[in-house]
Amino acid sequence: MSITVKALQKTGPDEPFRVGMIERRAPRADDVVIDIRAAGICHSDIHTIRNEWGQAHFPLTVGHEIAGVVEAVGDAVTDWKVGDRVGVGCLVDSCGECEECAAGQEQNCLRGNVGTYNSTDVDGTITQGGYAQKVVVSERFVCRIPDSLDFDVAAPLLCAGITTYQPLARWGAGEKNNGAAKQVAVVGLGGLGHMGVQIAAAMGAEVTVLSRTLRKESEALALGAKRMLATGEEDFFVSHNGEFDLILNTISADIPVDRYLHLLKPRGVMAVVGLPPAKQQLSFGSVIGGAKVLAGSNIGGIAETQEMLDFCAEHGIAAKIETIPVTEADAAYDRVVAGDVRFRAVIDTASFDDVEAV
Amino acid sequence: MSITVKALQKTGPDEPFRVGMIERRAPRADDVVIDIRAAGICHSDIHTIRNEWGQAHFPLTVGHEIAGVVEAVGDAVTDWKVGDRVGVGCLVDSCGECEECAAGQEQNCLRGNVGTYNSTDVDGTITQGGYAQKVVVSERFVCRIPDSLDFDVAAPLLCAGITTYQPLARWGAGEKNNGAAKQVAVVGLGGLGHMGVQIAAAMGAEVTVLSRTLRKESEALALGAKRMLATGEEDFFVSHNGEFDLILNTISADIPVDRYLHLLKPRGVMAVVGLPPAKQQLSFGSVIGGAKVLAGSNIGGIAETQEMLDFCAEHGIAAKIETIPVTEADAAYDRVVAGDVRFRAVIDTASFDDVEAV
Repeated sequence: MSITVKALQKTGPDEPFRVGMIERRAPRADDVVIDIRAAGICHSDIHTIRNEWGQAHFPLTVGHEIAGVVEAVGDAVTDWKVGDRVGVGCLVDSCGECEECAAGQEQNCLRGNVGTYNSTDVDGTITQGGYAQKVVVSERFVCRIPDSLDFDVAAPLLCAGITTYQPLARWGAGEKNNGAAKQVAVVGLGGLGHMGVQIAAAMGAEVTVLSRTLRKESEALALGAKRMLATGEEDFFVSHNGEFDLILNTISADIPVDRYLHLLKPRGVMAVVGLPPAKQQLSFGSVIGGAKVLAGSNIGGIAETQEMLDFCAEHGIAAKIETIPVTEADAAYDRVVAGDVRFRAVIDTASFDDVEAV
Repeated sequence: MSITVKALQKTGPDEPFRVGMIERRAPRADDVVIDIRAAGICHSDIHTIRNEWGQAHFPLTVGHEIAGVVEAVGDAVTDWKVGDRVGVGCLVDSCGECEECAAGQEQNCLRGNVGTYNSTDVDGTITQGGYAQKVVVSERFVCRIPDSLDFDVAAPLLCAGITTYQPLARWGAGEKNNGAAKQVAVVGLGGLGHMGVQIAAAMGAEVTVLSRTLRKESEALALGAKRMLATGEEDFFVSHNGEFDLILNTISADIPVDRYLHLLKPRGVMAVVGLPPAKQQLSFGSVIGGAKVLAGSNIGGIAETQEMLDFCAEHGIAAKIETIPVTEADAAYDRVVAGDVRFRAVIDTASFDDVEAV
């Protein structure tokens, strides 16, 4: 039997949020029913539901940073039991058989994965995200949230955490150069950047935050950065030429790619996770000289997501958040877009109890 | 005592070659004197001496694909002896102490390496390249040419060989995907491309040559490619979406970067070794989706160059060349620029004997 729950919905890109009722599918044998305790607000949610990335399917519930407790499990589920603390990120299904799924890279599933919201599910319905009381998900797409992580600070790890952990791990932020810590620059200190700084520092890198101004310097240092540098300063790109082993670019604005590549040491890597709307320009000479790398990254696989959660718990790091009730989602969106949230807004889903559904 | 030898010189970017006399330095304790038997003509030689890459220091002798025989060694030289078959590539000195030199990446020397020609040497003189009878080089920048490789077909390996071998090795062209050969595309079938095809095939990859037309298809197959595809064909970029693990781009023309990146499988790599004069455009989305990589590469270190020579000898591969006498260098340049050489022109330095120096 399907499950009816309260959820934050928009009925159109310019409509305010409303609390409506949505149906979760009747749990299949391999499904887990999760009682959602916290749901992070990711910038992708905003792009999607404001139709900035194409047509959303309205009415729509977004949210792919989900933390909660297992409330029921299907007959075939062996890995999860009622009461387990769990999370769900950006993916809720994939073929499970292709080369990429076999390699634990479900986000690259060659037959197309199923996103947590606004995606066509295997049964033809449109998936509805985590700004809701409960969700029903295949057990394969569930991760364990270690006991030391509260739900609200864990939720953002399911997207912002893995998005930054994956390229930092892949490109060796924690490795040493002749015994010395790697020099890692994190560009931008928002939802993604503030996780990147903490994770890179916990991996053992020496972290520099790059931003246009030093406005967030004290926060950067508190998160574990060694220093913050203002890219808007005269001669910045000349003075810091060749300093970094790895640059993690979390901003989605246009950047002077060649100038950033010149900040890298030989064989250095610039990993980009922020998506500027326009094409970017670079000279191939900027990667040929010094055999440099421009790499993209897009979340990570389920096993990697688990690895990241365990890593964060082990190192005592998590998202820095502001908790909001469901009634403040619209205001929170405006503040996220204005860059006015330190550093992630997370919906306390207990607040659904205080609101009547339409 | 310095050594006076015949060499091909230009006195200006638009002047024809002439055979002049140049001085090689008196061998130092760690120097090797090489009697040059063959010198490859690299497109970089042409760019340099025609002032297309900035101001050349005239009169200038170019050439950084040098093969010959050791004729004398300095007192401190222990690794080389008279009669050894050796080669010299694009580098003749580096600091030997920085992080990059210590890692065997002398081409990235943080204090600046000394190029084989048109470069300021440690003694302040301008280095003169390999279109000459002899060269004097520090023993650290000499590689052994295996007996099975003739001098003329070995010479181009010192630049074209290492330039293609390095990225193919770095990005795992020879590795398997669940037991299957990697799908490697080589873009362009000139001096670099024809080495890339042979090396990738010898590493065990399944090689596709990409070019605007199928004009060189029979040559591509003879070099070891499985197939050749014409990028100018309608729907090419759609039909071959997601097919390749690795693309080695050897051309120096503008390319539609996004469309090439879409030819890659998830986590695929496009390595570029050709340098188009203009900036190239790409959407970061083309690397973010599928976590793809755009990587540059610029020759390789000395140990890697030796490894490449040994690899080529072991697999019976070498450059496919046309041998020319010194009197035909101008004509050869025009033919290289016209793409009319299969696949490398190599100067037979014995032909210096037939020409009076000016």
